Amino acid sequence: MRAFDAPLHGGRLQEARRLFPGAPEPFIDLSTGINPLPYPVPPIEPPAWTRLPEPEKIAALEDAAAKAYGVAGGSMVVALPGTQLLISLLPRLSPQATVAILSPTYGEYARSFAAAGSRVVEMNTLAELADAPYAVICNPNNPDGRSFDGTVLFEFARRRAGSGLLLVDESFVDLERGSLSVAPHLPQPGLVVLRSLSKAYGLGGLRLGFALAHPDLIAAIRAPLGPWPVSGPAIDIGMRTLADRTWLVAARQRLTRDVARLDSLLREANLAVIGGTLLFRLVESNEAPALFHRLGEAGILVRSFDYRPDWLRFGMLGGEDEWQRLAAALSFTPASSNRD
Amino acid sequence: MRAFDAPLHGGRLQEARRLFPGAPEPFIDLSTGINPLPYPVPPIEPPAWTRLPEPEKIAALEDAAAKAYGVAGGSMVVALPGTQLLISLLPRLSPQATVAILSPTYGEYARSFAAAGSRVVEMNTLAELADAPYAVICNPNNPDGRSFDGTVLFEFARRRAGSGLLLVDESFVDLERGSLSVAPHLPQPGLVVLRSLSKAYGLGGLRLGFALAHPDLIAAIRAPLGPWPVSGPAIDIGMRTLADRTWLVAARQRLTRDVARLDSLLREANLAVIGGTLLFRLVESNEAPALFHRLGEAGILVRSFDYRPDWLRFGMLGGEDEWQRLAAALSFTPASSNRD
Repeated sequence: MRAFDAPLHGGRLQEARRLFPGAPEPFIDLSTGINPLPYPVPPIEPPAWTRLPEPEKIAALEDAAAKAYGVAGGSMVVALPGTQLLISLLPRLSPQATVAILSPTYGEYARSFAAAGSRVVEMNTLAELADAPYAVICNPNNPDGRSFDGTVLFEFARRRAGSGLLLVDESFVDLERGSLSVAPHLPQPGLVVLRSLSKAYGLGGLRLGFALAHPDLIAAIRAPLGPWPVSGPAIDIGMRTLADRTWLVAARQRLTRDVARLDSLLREANLAVIGGTLLFRLVESNEAPALFHRLGEAGILVRSFDYRPDWLRFGMLGGEDEWQRLAAALSFTPASSNRD
Repeated sequence: MRAFDAPLHGGRLQEARRLFPGAPEPFIDLSTGINPLPYPVPPIEPPAWTRLPEPEKIAALEDAAAKAYGVAGGSMVVALPGTQLLISLLPRLSPQATVAILSPTYGEYARSFAAAGSRVVEMNTLAELADAPYAVICNPNNPDGRSFDGTVLFEFARRRAGSGLLLVDESFVDLERGSLSVAPHLPQPGLVVLRSLSKAYGLGGLRLGFALAHPDLIAAIRAPLGPWPVSGPAIDIGMRTLADRTWLVAARQRLTRDVARLDSLLREANLAVIGGTLLFRLVESNEAPALFHRLGEAGILVRSFDYRPDWLRFGMLGGEDEWQRLAAALSFTPASSNRD
């Protein structure tokens, strides 16, 4: 098991600038799974900044989330100032002896539970999680894109019924095809689903996410957050994004094309794409550490993994200038070990 | 002791509209202690919405708060998505057998602690709080404006040293004259100070506040909030407001005049002002319940108190039209019982 005390998040451009002081600006941040062409934020009406969010508005946002995520009602939804808050809080609010995490995955789960005193076991298959009193699954998974159909996870949750909590993090599900989300199967006792506006909608700074669960569980999650858990602008922007299926469909089409373009660019550089979603691609290569630095010196930040030095995760690119710079930086990669 | 299960917050305009369906619009909301002429929110740069807040930016915000609040360093500050989150969370993260609250005061303290299983004792003097392992003081207090000098609270905290936590809520301190804040005396073991941008700056929807405490306590508060506790816009707006002393001084001057005007308006209506701050005035009258309804029917929402039906709290007014409407509504008040 690895140490959980060193979170290495994406999006650390200021750290990248320290690491690569000679890199050209602007830095291209490919270190996150955040959509580089975000939902266009509308002008914010002044009362959103000034007035305390009214409970009716929060309830309307939660209804909108229920509708967007295929959940039967707003009583199974609670709005969060980002899902990360709940990931950090849950281990402390609901201490567990042992937590099983389908791994490798987003590192904050292991880190938060370990910090709260839980024993963290990292499992590699769904079957190994079956008897764990507390289990965490990211679907689709970050960084490798491994995914399960929602019905598979629902059956898994049903077989576990009565044995603690199953947390399914669907932060990256919005743009994926098929029926990956387990949310439409709610309510199911012990099942908590997390959704986020940070990734597909590209709004990482907004801090808006949702937990979906049985109404009793939702009430238990809601209480410690108090009456104003989310900001006025987050409510207004959330209402708009969640109702806008047209934008989501167009984003999916564009990212499908862009993923194909990125994959072929990576293949041309002799980099094996071993997984991903429409918001990031995972590459495996013995050259990964060298490539990380080469890209960094070219002003391109990708995500490395302390536990898998041969992996790099590439986020999606925005404008054409970014594509050109990545292509140029990759073409300098010595194509050696993978050709052996 | 009263029941803690029915929070009656200010700012519930939608509820007011249901209660007074025939009231003229726009409703004037005097039910909060939020500055009606808020800090002018600058245009938000797109990256504030899209990028995950970088740790360096959060640290810079906390440094700015330390400077504004007279605290020796940013290591004694943690940014919060509103102080209410901590008020709701603390009782659950740090369960206490008994909590003593200087009362009457902001109801969420008693409610949160009771909901978390603590025994809540409401005390009326500082001396009665001296031996409580966990004590809560709002300074200045809401709704009556009772206040202590910061040095008095610091001496009080020192005498308590070693006996649990002392939480001092300074949500309403920014505009007050004198040296009410205990923050400049930090660090002091067990002392936690809360500050907010919701009240003096009029930014209740922004959700930004701070806890100030000894660095060890700050680290303990920070951990369960995760790496992105506040939004990108909250960071940008917070940086600007906290550095802008000119605006704060002008707001204080304007509100000093407005408070005098409101007090004389209330006195003319035979309403005794028994306390308050520059952001709200507390009135005591046997006519309070009738006046609440009369004002409501005139489209003016003030704050009533279930535990003191003879009290009404008036928030501050914005434009001249609001003054005229309040004056007209008050002049219809039958001036009876107070003249006896």
